[in-house]
Amino acid sequence: MRAFWSPRIRSLVPYTPGEQPKDRTFIKLNTNENPYPPSPKALEAIRDAAGGALRLYPDPDGSALRDSLAALHRVKPEQVFVGNGSDEVLAMAFLAFFDPEQELVFPDITYSFYPVYAELFGLRFREIPLDEAYRVPVEQFVGRSGGVVLANPNAPTGRALPLDGIKTIVEGNPQSVVLIDEAYVDFGGESAASLVDSCPNLLVVRTMSKSRSLAGLRVGYALGGAHLIAGLDAVKNSFNSYTLDRLALAGAAGSLADPDYFQETVDKIIRTREQTAGRLRELGFSVCESAANFLFLSHDRVAAKELLDGLRARGILVRWWDKPRISNHLRVTVGTEEEMDALCAALAELVGA
Amino acid sequence: MRAFWSPRIRSLVPYTPGEQPKDRTFIKLNTNENPYPPSPKALEAIRDAAGGALRLYPDPDGSALRDSLAALHRVKPEQVFVGNGSDEVLAMAFLAFFDPEQELVFPDITYSFYPVYAELFGLRFREIPLDEAYRVPVEQFVGRSGGVVLANPNAPTGRALPLDGIKTIVEGNPQSVVLIDEAYVDFGGESAASLVDSCPNLLVVRTMSKSRSLAGLRVGYALGGAHLIAGLDAVKNSFNSYTLDRLALAGAAGSLADPDYFQETVDKIIRTREQTAGRLRELGFSVCESAANFLFLSHDRVAAKELLDGLRARGILVRWWDKPRISNHLRVTVGTEEEMDALCAALAELVGA
Repeated sequence: MRAFWSPRIRSLVPYTPGEQPKDRTFIKLNTNENPYPPSPKALEAIRDAAGGALRLYPDPDGSALRDSLAALHRVKPEQVFVGNGSDEVLAMAFLAFFDPEQELVFPDITYSFYPVYAELFGLRFREIPLDEAYRVPVEQFVGRSGGVVLANPNAPTGRALPLDGIKTIVEGNPQSVVLIDEAYVDFGGESAASLVDSCPNLLVVRTMSKSRSLAGLRVGYALGGAHLIAGLDAVKNSFNSYTLDRLALAGAAGSLADPDYFQETVDKIIRTREQTAGRLRELGFSVCESAANFLFLSHDRVAAKELLDGLRARGILVRWWDKPRISNHLRVTVGTEEEMDALCAALAELVGA
Repeated sequence: MRAFWSPRIRSLVPYTPGEQPKDRTFIKLNTNENPYPPSPKALEAIRDAAGGALRLYPDPDGSALRDSLAALHRVKPEQVFVGNGSDEVLAMAFLAFFDPEQELVFPDITYSFYPVYAELFGLRFREIPLDEAYRVPVEQFVGRSGGVVLANPNAPTGRALPLDGIKTIVEGNPQSVVLIDEAYVDFGGESAASLVDSCPNLLVVRTMSKSRSLAGLRVGYALGGAHLIAGLDAVKNSFNSYTLDRLALAGAAGSLADPDYFQETVDKIIRTREQTAGRLRELGFSVCESAANFLFLSHDRVAAKELLDGLRARGILVRWWDKPRISNHLRVTVGTEEEMDALCAALAELVGA
């Protein structure tokens, strides 16, 4: 089956995204999607863009969107890169800034796409163990030579590292890029975006998939020094001139034009998360402190795999990994209050509470 | 400016797409866009998809679109790969099938993104000269060991290689992948899609940007043996799980559901191309025989660069490359009849006819 494959892709083990069921309706708490629809302004902007101008290529630089993002984050437009989801931005950053001759580091428990990118681009990497409470051992991420990647808040744990920890790591690796993946930061983390002016080796990656309810539109971006953004542009323009279609550019701009809707949605999810965490703890679950739109939990009497299957049988999808240190945990996306009621009821039944 | 760039991207010279003017209105004949809008069914499908479901990730496999494309080309769904424009599909194919230890070949005059992909992925390549009439010297593309890439019809010449020539090249390289880039094939070339069942080393790449008027939506695809498609999937799933957003998937399907509109549009462009070529020859231009939606032309008394500037001053954008063997040629996209009237009038003035 691998006839004609280049030697360098023969051993790839691709990332496996959470299931996107096509046939049956589930309460879908497995891919950290936002339970609320995108801003009406985003949808309106998309409908307005769905016209004859689609015959024309989009702006290859996405300049208007870069300008809006620069205004939001109080940086210059040349400090903003935009891409087809933060996964694409991450892939391009791995290729642009990490060197096959050096050793890249990231935590042992984190977004499982990182080792996949490293394999794709032939990068050596080391996974540094989180501590027993899944906290980042800051000092072990200092003085590395080949780059650092950290999700903050981390996935699948939801734990956030305070900004001073991030700063220590960025300043402790002056010769290599520190990439902070802030996919979930809007739900309670402290963003490192404020540091990009003073830290030339810092790249912050963001997405509109989670807090802006636009997973289906594929818009991600990066913030960093203009020299880092130019590197991402060089890779992007050597790979695909037009990574963002006209509808994605329009929808993203529409979302940014509606800050109130964004804040309301985020606030609702944070409230629901805290209520749900409390109820789950009452049911005997250990629940990680979360600054994200998901909860990471385990039960001391009922195995996570059993809970996964039991929830699925009850029409609820959550995420589980058969991996060292986390195979007795589930990651559960924070949905609507009604979805969380159903989740808590099902889990109560499964743990016999 | 290149601080922190990985050594392997420091020497990249990215592809330069044709200008997308933001301020002024031009007659835009510089990026081979279709002058007619997308099918109304495509636009309707996009508007229908611009709803709350955008909060959810798209189908990472694009299965429904693959099924439709398989039906169109009479292949199996596992023989179809879909991507974010054919540029992305090409990039992934270069990474998946060509080996840094071997020598890839393509013509000296062709789509100028090919050497950029090769540089990005560290591939050695050789550019084989087209003959004086810009025809592919078939025998020189036989017996190569590291893969072949051919645009058919070729860009920027518009010349098509008949299917028997393609077949000779595919069969003459049984150990390596022959990639046929059919971005323009709907305008008059013979597609190699019919050969993918019998030729395990053939990959055909297509786009919806040109003949389907969807440059702004970014949808491309590849047809090939299931083992090649699996290789592309392995790369894609190691790079970005969801390369096509929900709107692109919907719009592409809508376009495929309207074959009559597609055929009418293509027929109109072919008629306009032939009329325009005739008029330009009457003005003293040499015009390549074209099977694409553009014309490649030169004049023996007035330099191409002078024509480029003169056209721009008259509000008409066309494409010119300062490159050996073609620096006295212009590539002109076939627009509407009215746009071609304006083009011919401007060129008549510029050559003093």
